[in-house]
Amino acid sequence: MKATLAQLAALIGGTVQGNPDLEISGVAALEDAQAGQITFLARRKYLSLLARSKASAVVVGSDVTVDRPSLRVSNPYLALSKLLAYFHPPAVPRVGVDPRAFVEEGVVLEGDVSIAPFVWVGKGSRLGAGVTLHAGVSVGEGVTIGRDTILHSNVSIYPGVTIGQRVIVHSGAVLGSDGFGFVRDEGGRHRKIPQVGRVVIEDDVEIGANVCIDRATLGITVIERGTKIDNLVQIAHNVKIGEDSIIVAQVGISGSVTIGKRVTIAGQAGLADHLTVGDGSTIGGGSGVAKDVNPGEVLMGAPAIPHTLWRRVQACVPQLPEMVRKLQNIEKRLRQLEQQKEKD
Amino acid sequence: MKATLAQLAALIGGTVQGNPDLEISGVAALEDAQAGQITFLARRKYLSLLARSKASAVVVGSDVTVDRPSLRVSNPYLALSKLLAYFHPPAVPRVGVDPRAFVEEGVVLEGDVSIAPFVWVGKGSRLGAGVTLHAGVSVGEGVTIGRDTILHSNVSIYPGVTIGQRVIVHSGAVLGSDGFGFVRDEGGRHRKIPQVGRVVIEDDVEIGANVCIDRATLGITVIERGTKIDNLVQIAHNVKIGEDSIIVAQVGISGSVTIGKRVTIAGQAGLADHLTVGDGSTIGGGSGVAKDVNPGEVLMGAPAIPHTLWRRVQACVPQLPEMVRKLQNIEKRLRQLEQQKEKD
Amino acid sequence: MKATLAQLAALIGGTVQGNPDLEISGVAALEDAQAGQITFLARRKYLSLLARSKASAVVVGSDVTVDRPSLRVSNPYLALSKLLAYFHPPAVPRVGVDPRAFVEEGVVLEGDVSIAPFVWVGKGSRLGAGVTLHAGVSVGEGVTIGRDTILHSNVSIYPGVTIGQRVIVHSGAVLGSDGFGFVRDEGGRHRKIPQVGRVVIEDDVEIGANVCIDRATLGITVIERGTKIDNLVQIAHNVKIGEDSIIVAQVGISGSVTIGKRVTIAGQAGLADHLTVGDGSTIGGGSGVAKDVNPGEVLMGAPAIPHTLWRRVQACVPQLPEMVRKLQNIEKRLRQLEQQKEKD
Repeated sequence: MKATLAQLAALIGGTVQGNPDLEISGVAALEDAQAGQITFLARRKYLSLLARSKASAVVVGSDVTVDRPSLRVSNPYLALSKLLAYFHPPAVPRVGVDPRAFVEEGVVLEGDVSIAPFVWVGKGSRLGAGVTLHAGVSVGEGVTIGRDTILHSNVSIYPGVTIGQRVIVHSGAVLGSDGFGFVRDEGGRHRKIPQVGRVVIEDDVEIGANVCIDRATLGITVIERGTKIDNLVQIAHNVKIGEDSIIVAQVGISGSVTIGKRVTIAGQAGLADHLTVGDGSTIGGGSGVAKDVNPGEVLMGAPAIPHTLWRRVQACVPQLPEMVRKLQNIEKRLRQLEQQKEKD
Repeated sequence: MKATLAQLAALIGGTVQGNPDLEISGVAALEDAQAGQITFLARRKYLSLLARSKASAVVVGSDVTVDRPSLRVSNPYLALSKLLAYFHPPAVPRVGVDPRAFVEEGVVLEGDVSIAPFVWVGKGSRLGAGVTLHAGVSVGEGVTIGRDTILHSNVSIYPGVTIGQRVIVHSGAVLGSDGFGFVRDEGGRHRKIPQVGRVVIEDDVEIGANVCIDRATLGITVIERGTKIDNLVQIAHNVKIGEDSIIVAQVGISGSVTIGKRVTIAGQAGLADHLTVGDGSTIGGGSGVAKDVNPGEVLMGAPAIPHTLWRRVQACVPQLPEMVRKLQNIEKRLRQLEQQKEKD
Repeated sequence: MKATLAQLAALIGGTVQGNPDLEISGVAALEDAQAGQITFLARRKYLSLLARSKASAVVVGSDVTVDRPSLRVSNPYLALSKLLAYFHPPAVPRVGVDPRAFVEEGVVLEGDVSIAPFVWVGKGSRLGAGVTLHAGVSVGEGVTIGRDTILHSNVSIYPGVTIGQRVIVHSGAVLGSDGFGFVRDEGGRHRKIPQVGRVVIEDDVEIGANVCIDRATLGITVIERGTKIDNLVQIAHNVKIGEDSIIVAQVGISGSVTIGKRVTIAGQAGLADHLTVGDGSTIGGGSGVAKDVNPGEVLMGAPAIPHTLWRRVQACVPQLPEMVRKLQNIEKRLRQLEQQKEKD
């Protein structure tokens, strides 16, 4: 896979600085790039690394000038994603159903699919053209999977789940397990509330490794188009996450939470049940959210408060021992003044 | 599956308001219910949703009066669990051992079982009647599984684990992996302490997706009867959890912790090793517990403190910057008074 | 498996107190040990448990004297690990490739291996002698696994991952899943940045159940020799963890973090992206780290601060409501003094 600088400029929408006929054979990080490869400068602070890089060319922001052949673009990360897709096209999966897989009678395959060894697909399911199921995937009865969707190895899909097109689900993820719903019976023991709802994953969603998305008690748990979910995230029953949101690793979202579009929830944050989180809001890493979040709000902390306030509060926290000491000192001096006053 | 209102009243132990012969065909949430279905009003604040619901009947608390056919009960959630179980009986699994599964010679099947494709059961194991093993389950050597227990797809059971009756284990859960035990050897490297104990899961326990329960170093890690564990929970070696407790998603319980009966641990809380947690106590979401917990205590925060104190503390936290400012102001004024005093 | 006290002393490097010919048949915890077994006293505070123990002998620290046959050692835990390894040698796996497994043509087996049913190994992979793959393991194309490494059931290895010798990977762990990298395209939607790097696991690493280790965007994610990782840990793309570190359960490490040697990160801690964590540092349970960590530092809290400061701060936190009250009281008294002053 080779291309000239001019060809790459056309691919990523950039401007060539230097020889447009320079031939490029690959893309690599600043430290790792070899002669013949193109690298990228994500932040100005890495200019010193660039100086030592062996790369023959570099992708830079439109406001950066460097002393080697370069492609200037408005968004270097977007350019990188296009270069990587060009130089590293996804492996073409073996088409067909491996004889060691077991697809139940009556399952509808809407076109060529790729089904690896030890995959099981239950009755009444329907797979779109281009679907890839890696080794050890389990797809329950009545599941629908849209075209070009990929389930990596050992993914578990419970019955009745619906998955859209171009979805990627990483290994070990579990979609459609029972919501965590119990009620104490007359004798004080926990009785299971049957979880008879479903899970709907819309188009272009990506779901990380070992993520858990529970089916609804009644109704649906839904992840809307384009939302990306990192590894080890917990999504409880009846949650709704809007389009184009980002849920970072180990986040926990309790039952019946409704999250808007373009929301970002950073790693290890937790949300209490039945909350509403407005469009475009951001919840910082490790935060604990127990109240509704307004659109566009930026929260941090446990319990979560506006991020600007949180920063000011945190600047004070290490001063607490000093504050306690000062208070004691002030009280003592105040008492002295008061006693003197009484004497006067 | 249909029933009259009177029949449902008998099923759930409620009182009919309206036509007892009204025929009901299913149960659904307030927003989703169609004509012919029954819905339920969990909290009074949803009365406005009920007004717009198409449901033909509704389950309400005994203190609520509504203007459509209803079943009055003392506990609407308990009634709901019974209605759901009636209208959605669990799928009857295919009985038998699928020819694509591999049950080692000498495994004891105590009655009809349901073993899906690509399940492996190791030598010396014993499965009770009615056990269901879904696709891709791995059961190590010498495992005992009680009757009517269900292991969902891709569950991994290490050798020697004992599982009771009517237990449900969701996909991806791992029972009996090695406890995390190492000791530095003479050269400063970590040497593994062999984990030769076991895991015991008692009757009626439910274990969520991708939960990890480690085997004991020596002795047993035990989850007692009726305890329910949500997804992605970590339970370390030699932990004991008492009966009828509730462990919510992403909780982490360190080694040798002993937890009592009817304890509730909310999502993402963490417990340090060797603690004792008393019966009936409650630990709030995201809490970090580093001390023993008394029976009945309600704790919150990291480090965890009594919940009522935590609420009062948290009300003050956002005032910290203002407190710092006030302290400075007070010190200044106090100095002025002291200086004037000296002059006097 | 039996041995005399003298033989065990030679094995663990201890000194015999009492009859050296006493025959020992096993090792057990203080509470569980039976006559004929040896137990161990990890901490002096368990001396009362020892008094009630049925054990015929006991391993103790070199500064402890007890009234029954004993082995005195400098490190009881290290001795325990050796006794356990002696009395509980690991099960010898069945050698060979089970006919129900599927090893693709051209995979190199460098010696005797043990491959269980329903294991898939992709083209171009290479397995060292003594490798054990348990049921349901999936090994992608071009993976290298060093000798005597064990992958437990349902582990998923993505293509191109390299695993060293004597590595243990517990069930459900996922190595080499895509890093979480997206960039907004011109239309505001998330576009995937292809993750084309690799994962390298060095010798003697242990990886817990359901751990996720993402492949690098470019370059490698690497876990160096001897590091031990507990269950449900998240390790993002391009992370590097140095030798002999300890990462406890549910820790989350964000992208491009570099961690030194002999670092300890306690349970549920989280690290923000691009940080550097110095050799020999310790990060407390549940901490949130957002700044570089110096070698040897001991941090705690969210945001993390030096542990000694954190303890002093936490001692003050519950006093906050009282501090607010005191401040109000002081202000009032100060105002009175000022008003009197004005009157004077």
